[in-house]
Amino acid sequence: MAKKDKKSKGPRGGSFRDALRVGDGFVLAELDPRSTPGFTGDKVAGQEALLAADEEMDTLQEQLYAMSKAGARRRVLLVIQGMDTSGKGGIMRHVVGSVDPQGVQLTAFKAPTAEEKKHPFLWRIRRALPDPGMIGVFDRSHYEDVLIVRVHDLVPRAQWSRRYAQINAFEQGLVEDEVTVIKVMTHISADEQKARLQERLDRPDKHWKYNPGDLDERAHWDDYQEAYQALLERCSTDAAPWYVVPADRKWYARLAVQQLLLEHLRELDLTWPEADFDVEAEKARLAQM
Amino acid sequence: MAKKDKKSKGPRGGSFRDALRVGDGFVLAELDPRSTPGFTGDKVAGQEALLAADEEMDTLQEQLYAMSKAGARRRVLLVIQGMDTSGKGGIMRHVVGSVDPQGVQLTAFKAPTAEEKKHPFLWRIRRALPDPGMIGVFDRSHYEDVLIVRVHDLVPRAQWSRRYAQINAFEQGLVEDEVTVIKVMTHISADEQKARLQERLDRPDKHWKYNPGDLDERAHWDDYQEAYQALLERCSTDAAPWYVVPADRKWYARLAVQQLLLEHLRELDLTWPEADFDVEAEKARLAQM
Repeated sequence: MAKKDKKSKGPRGGSFRDALRVGDGFVLAELDPRSTPGFTGDKVAGQEALLAADEEMDTLQEQLYAMSKAGARRRVLLVIQGMDTSGKGGIMRHVVGSVDPQGVQLTAFKAPTAEEKKHPFLWRIRRALPDPGMIGVFDRSHYEDVLIVRVHDLVPRAQWSRRYAQINAFEQGLVEDEVTVIKVMTHISADEQKARLQERLDRPDKHWKYNPGDLDERAHWDDYQEAYQALLERCSTDAAPWYVVPADRKWYARLAVQQLLLEHLRELDLTWPEADFDVEAEKARLAQM
Repeated sequence: MAKKDKKSKGPRGGSFRDALRVGDGFVLAELDPRSTPGFTGDKVAGQEALLAADEEMDTLQEQLYAMSKAGARRRVLLVIQGMDTSGKGGIMRHVVGSVDPQGVQLTAFKAPTAEEKKHPFLWRIRRALPDPGMIGVFDRSHYEDVLIVRVHDLVPRAQWSRRYAQINAFEQGLVEDEVTVIKVMTHISADEQKARLQERLDRPDKHWKYNPGDLDERAHWDDYQEAYQALLERCSTDAAPWYVVPADRKWYARLAVQQLLLEHLRELDLTWPEADFDVEAEKARLAQM
């Protein structure tokens, strides 16, 4: 492949990686959740761009998988974090759901079980890492251990404050072990969350998604924003940077996550593996049967 | 819901369950792999019918999931078995892949690992059963233990011959435990398999799917057909019947599996669970925040 293919280009020429990456001096509060970095089109154009990328995604995912059958260890880990109602479920359904399920390992992390609580916080994360050739997807992740745990002091401050460095070391190890780590925060405004919670209360077919505890958490909005700011500052590393996706517009957030995944896959030099058998000899055998 | 909704109807008025169910006196060799039982349309109509069912599938799957959040234990287990190249992968991609991945637990069973071999053959199966509210999908299954194991005498005959009754007892237990079991065999002809293997040899992007061992297995075609006939006769029970899907036409096999899943979901009396909180009180709280 020519080098020019290496630089990922979004559907309108931009790179979502460049537009969304958390670098030095990043301030979450200054990012407009209604903005659409890296994309100049409107909603219809965004939805078209999402569908238009399906074929390339299919090929890249299948090549990633095929190469593992030929012995490669490369795998991808997409981590999605965000406030309640920030559209994580929609991303799972519409972005992850458009990928061949045979190539995806999806884990939704809930409050830790009694068994999980007996172990260090990364224990359950390690167990859910993708196999070679797979795209692992985490709906919430080890970052909950510096989010809800920090906001509610579920462990002493001395303990959670050490976790940022532990997470960085853990992710560095993943990257060295041929895991492509893509960490995405879906960023909504407090007003948008209010509207989405209101919809869940207004529609009987959405009541099951609503939990009175959601409002208890909403009361800690500022604490959560502060906790996100802290992890973005401390855990956006060269090995595993964070990307913050403005998510008040669902169509944009879905497109952005898809394009981030695509841009990372494009850089892996994926190809169809060579046959490890004698093709002509097999053709001759088959012809006899 | 009125009783009339209970009788499942396919896209052209038929019931795939009725058309494909293995009953007394079923003879696999007499079923034409190019036939399209339960459907009178052509390929284009079949592909349209597949897409047309997406919305109903989405709603039913989400209701199944939602009801589990309200305490229900019902789950679904779709088992797919078939000869190499019979289209299992395409069904995973196009039928299972059209369902929200958050509601699906897909397991592909390969040759047992050293760990798995230490346990009874149903051990790894039990560990992969779907959680409440989920649609579990098995790509191959415990039936390999009366297929490849029987054909190659991987265990003594006395041992595999007991497994039919063990499987029936196991599945009866699942059904009593609120698991809806849907067992599907994708049925292709030897000629169609030859053509599909030929394609894998002709196309470099398909070489990774080919294994010389596939031809070794093909040499045992008749033994496998006999082993399928035996399990269809012995394990198509009232609790968990088998469905045999003619699979020489990929579009038909995909439609048939989707419709079998849909027909079973329709009979589960799924609905949106009632809120377990005071909706008006929550609206009032939210308005304050």
